[in-house]
Amino acid sequence: DVRISLPAVCFMWQIAMIILFGVFVRYDEESDAHWSEHKRANNITSDIENDFYYRYPSFQDVHVMIFVGFGFLMTFLKRYSFGGVGFNFLIAAFGLQWALLMQGWFHFLDPVDGYIKIGVENIINADFCVAGCLIAYGALLGKVSPVQLMVLTLFGITLFAVEEYIILHVLHVRDAGGSMVIHTFGGYYGLTISWILYRPKLDKRLNGSVYQSDVFAMIGTLFLWMFWPSFNSAISDHGDGQHRAAINTYLALASSVLTTFAISSLSAKRGKLDMVHIQNATLAGGVAMGSAAEFMITPYGSLIVGFCCGIISTFGYLVISPFMEKYLKIQDTCGVHNLHAMPGVLGAVVGAITAAAASESVYGHEGLVNTFNFKGKYAERTPATQGGFQAAGLCVALAFGIVGGAIVGLILRLPFWGDPSDDNCFDDEVYWEVPEDEESIP
Amino acid sequence: DVRISLPAVCFMWQIAMIILFGVFVRYDEESDAHWSEHKRANNITSDIENDFYYRYPSFQDVHVMIFVGFGFLMTFLKRYSFGGVGFNFLIAAFGLQWALLMQGWFHFLDPVDGYIKIGVENIINADFCVAGCLIAYGALLGKVSPVQLMVLTLFGITLFAVEEYIILHVLHVRDAGGSMVIHTFGGYYGLTISWILYRPKLDKRLNGSVYQSDVFAMIGTLFLWMFWPSFNSAISDHGDGQHRAAINTYLALASSVLTTFAISSLSAKRGKLDMVHIQNATLAGGVAMGSAAEFMITPYGSLIVGFCCGIISTFGYLVISPFMEKYLKIQDTCGVHNLHAMPGVLGAVVGAITAAAASESVYGHEGLVNTFNFKGKYAERTPATQGGFQAAGLCVALAFGIVGGAIVGLILRLPFWGDPSDDNCFDDEVYWEVPEDEESIP
Amino acid sequence: DVRISLPAVCFMWQIAMIILFGVFVRYDEESDAHWSEHKRANNITSDIENDFYYRYPSFQDVHVMIFVGFGFLMTFLKRYSFGGVGFNFLIAAFGLQWALLMQGWFHFLDPVDGYIKIGVENIINADFCVAGCLIAYGALLGKVSPVQLMVLTLFGITLFAVEEYIILHVLHVRDAGGSMVIHTFGGYYGLTISWILYRPKLDKRLNGSVYQSDVFAMIGTLFLWMFWPSFNSAISDHGDGQHRAAINTYLALASSVLTTFAISSLSAKRGKLDMVHIQNATLAGGVAMGSAAEFMITPYGSLIVGFCCGIISTFGYLVISPFMEKYLKIQDTCGVHNLHAMPGVLGAVVGAITAAAASESVYGHEGLVNTFNFKGKYAERTPATQGGFQAAGLCVALAFGIVGGAIVGLILRLPFWGDPSDDNCFDDEVYWEVPEDEESIP
Repeated sequence: DVRISLPAVCFMWQIAMIILFGVFVRYDEESDAHWSEHKRANNITSDIENDFYYRYPSFQDVHVMIFVGFGFLMTFLKRYSFGGVGFNFLIAAFGLQWALLMQGWFHFLDPVDGYIKIGVENIINADFCVAGCLIAYGALLGKVSPVQLMVLTLFGITLFAVEEYIILHVLHVRDAGGSMVIHTFGGYYGLTISWILYRPKLDKRLNGSVYQSDVFAMIGTLFLWMFWPSFNSAISDHGDGQHRAAINTYLALASSVLTTFAISSLSAKRGKLDMVHIQNATLAGGVAMGSAAEFMITPYGSLIVGFCCGIISTFGYLVISPFMEKYLKIQDTCGVHNLHAMPGVLGAVVGAITAAAASESVYGHEGLVNTFNFKGKYAERTPATQGGFQAAGLCVALAFGIVGGAIVGLILRLPFWGDPSDDNCFDDEVYWEVPEDEESIP
Repeated sequence: DVRISLPAVCFMWQIAMIILFGVFVRYDEESDAHWSEHKRANNITSDIENDFYYRYPSFQDVHVMIFVGFGFLMTFLKRYSFGGVGFNFLIAAFGLQWALLMQGWFHFLDPVDGYIKIGVENIINADFCVAGCLIAYGALLGKVSPVQLMVLTLFGITLFAVEEYIILHVLHVRDAGGSMVIHTFGGYYGLTISWILYRPKLDKRLNGSVYQSDVFAMIGTLFLWMFWPSFNSAISDHGDGQHRAAINTYLALASSVLTTFAISSLSAKRGKLDMVHIQNATLAGGVAMGSAAEFMITPYGSLIVGFCCGIISTFGYLVISPFMEKYLKIQDTCGVHNLHAMPGVLGAVVGAITAAAASESVYGHEGLVNTFNFKGKYAERTPATQGGFQAAGLCVALAFGIVGGAIVGLILRLPFWGDPSDDNCFDDEVYWEVPEDEESIP
Repeated sequence: DVRISLPAVCFMWQIAMIILFGVFVRYDEESDAHWSEHKRANNITSDIENDFYYRYPSFQDVHVMIFVGFGFLMTFLKRYSFGGVGFNFLIAAFGLQWALLMQGWFHFLDPVDGYIKIGVENIINADFCVAGCLIAYGALLGKVSPVQLMVLTLFGITLFAVEEYIILHVLHVRDAGGSMVIHTFGGYYGLTISWILYRPKLDKRLNGSVYQSDVFAMIGTLFLWMFWPSFNSAISDHGDGQHRAAINTYLALASSVLTTFAISSLSAKRGKLDMVHIQNATLAGGVAMGSAAEFMITPYGSLIVGFCCGIISTFGYLVISPFMEKYLKIQDTCGVHNLHAMPGVLGAVVGAITAAAASESVYGHEGLVNTFNFKGKYAERTPATQGGFQAAGLCVALAFGIVGGAIVGLILRLPFWGDPSDDNCFDDEVYWEVPEDEESIP
């Protein structure tokens, strides 16, 4: 019964968060009231050097992507808009708390006092971490209960933090916008769960849009599209790193739009455009720039990446999704395979190649060291080696997505999660008080 | 007749604004063309030290909350979306001009030349001031004429500026996000007016949502929710002050979401979630962090505040609002008592306790002085005393809201404001040219 | 056939972009990996001095205006919301690439190596350039094919870049928010094309809104309104220039709202407000501050500009648009004459007067030199002369709009562009797969 399980899960987990935050989480030196002493001790001459001013505008853009972008993108179903935007809201709000803890334990633990110290970079990372789970939700939209989503998120964030630790810290891979860490992982995590939860008799009458819901979904699309340059640049290096990541992403996204419109029109009988493509495939360029955005991929390189991704992603909606549903038994409501999984893999490959091709003549010595963080024990790593590690990172992301998804999928098949019956999928009536239609106004 | 009164009020007041701005308002030293001389005279080495770069991103977030956040939150009624977003637009645009003047006279008057000098901090404050009146509008949504709203705003801004002066300057209270100054005042101001304008025979057929209008309202909810960290940090101290306020608010809001979902589900027959709760109570954590956001309340302290507020606010919608309407004769269309008034009071109490508990061991000496501005004639004030003054500030806000609301309510009962009849409440037809329905397309 | 022409144009032009970017476009010194060397060579002490941190928040606001602002403003038609927001997306994404090249060749060509070097200022400028074409689209909404729009954009961007070069560089005119360069040019460009494409038998059944589409359009209106201060300040001078431009625009916009509501109510039989006015004329103050925003026009001067523009623009919708359609044979779907063309001209005049009236007593010597960039070969120019050049700039913008529009209009009359028949105008069915209505849910 949802009436018991959902409140129970929400309360218990929120109380757990409070306790764990009480034990583990404190402000970092830039958000703590001792900042003025820290400033003096470190010869910082101005408050503007506080990382808040470098990253907060990007954080807010990312925040909008998570809640309005993902949320409204999932309102496209004719009778699941409440669930799309509402459950997105719920799991993101839970996920970001758990992410602060998990990422904190792995990356931000202060060795002196054992506390996780948080600042603006942590809340950006938490939003990123949540994105992985929201991508997975996209594959399952309309077919799972809110309690299942909470479970998916709990495990998803956990897997994410481990995977991220291995990729970014053990392998020392660069993945500023998360082509591997976020999109590849999130995409395959959701797809594998969807495969395990396959419903052979799924009722698809409500699995489609109406005119108004398609316009609502465009709100999500556009906020994702516009703010993606902030997503890919939010945690890259101060200065040229953030600057370049934003420009590269801006260009790749623009290029995706044109090829998406082209393929969408080319594939339809009378050249009519399909809103599903416009809402989704236009974003593929941003996904695919997730690894290489901060590299010197050049402006035309970015355009080429976007060009290819718009084609591949639209092609995915046209051919691969129907194939996967028919032959692989993977029901992918939002087509996350086309928007996140494939472009994420492609982005990882682009990142590996771009990294392997890096040279001091292009980056300058300092630029190369800064961009790839060839410092400390990585001081001897060459770009070619880095390219190899980037490729290894992709494998880790794939493995975590697929194996993790399989395990979590099996957990979600347990019979007590209150998932909707095949007849009730894609219908808000199951979990929401839905107001009567306007026609019934006297 | 609206056709005469509304244009007359708009024209007269706008002309009055122009005259008063001509007499009183000039650019401050950071927005004046003499900035380069000011820079040199004050040894400022970079344009980036202009306050514009510290606060403008936050200003834009606040601006979105005022116009899209409040505006779209009020589109939830099935036939009052034009009035919700449109009148919100009108009174906010008027209110911010009057607020620049009123707040200018009280806080920003240059003693040398008698001018109000405005910069980015003033336009943030003006937006804040307007928020108080928009909260009041929430209680009256659908039941008043635009002219009444203009009057409500004129007096509301005036009261706000006086109340704010007493609380922030006379009592030297800290209230960065306005738990007292904005939410408590605005909430009780609107509720008292609503009590005076009680309509025993109110027709409620149109006092409800339809599917699409609930999705529109979620646009408002999410932009309020996402940008609330900017609201609470917009005018707090440069550096750690803004940084910490943003993080605390982010956490409190996340926590509110989970308890709101929990109580909403728990209270319904079959565990079905109610969109009214999700649209409103999820925001209560932001309201309640309005005073304490810049304090060292700790991350888990923020989570606790949000936890409690989500519960209290949802409970308010379930129990207190029906009670107030039945027994206290207060009709509160948007439930501002649950979203602003109660969480505002709670936020003030949290702020008072957190202030009273502040210590040099937690803040550091400098941090304590900076955070509470214990400087000049307040150099001797202790945290415990500060806590007392914070509580006194709450009383001032309550008094201004209730007494001011009573007076303005009586003014608004005068018979010439063109308010809608009981049958026409919640209907855009009264004040708007409403297009015919889509069904009538040939 | 759209199925061939649209994909062909998209592919060819995107491939052309890739090639041209490959030949011409590189990162500038602030987005290149050599930034750390550049910093040292130029004695720049902090990454925060990278132009990214001065302008990126404004860029993102402008970006939202282009894609969500313009896009959703054009969703107001009952059956052309897909085309409104979708084609806006397509042509903006193409236009910004072409704009980077065109503006690059004219303004940003590195004389040493012949490359266009791009950074954050370029992507703001590209968005600005696109705005001109989107304005033109507003006049043609619902009456042209996507291929025609692509052609309109290709030529529009080209004309824009030349016109901008003449106005800003040859004449040395100041036009930070583009009253002339963007709004006057874009408005008359679109109106002239619309005149050439006049359809005497246009079917107007679908040329109107429904309740929901009017609410969608308010999303566009509000994001334009809120972020206009960022638009006018995005590329003005660091420090006081950006600060003052934002404040002036904020005030002018607020003032426009009140006079728009006044005239809208005054003009209707029973004082009922018209959504078309609220959606559009409230923005006129922002357009009219496009030239003078960075000048010392004073706060009350800004209010006066907004005051007048709200009146003129609403009056345009009431009187001038019907007149133009009836007697001048100009069908202007969105009323761009009232929102962009007239306020743009007015803004140019305001800019010329304000410039001519500038003095060292108001600006200070340095302030005057900085604001008008009276440096190098313009060191001897006086404010009075500058006023004359500002007026000359307006003439250039008008000439480019009208002559350019005439030429492009004739090109668009060629018979192979796949434009809709008179019966199919304002109908998404022609170019989009439109989902069936909700009524047909079983």
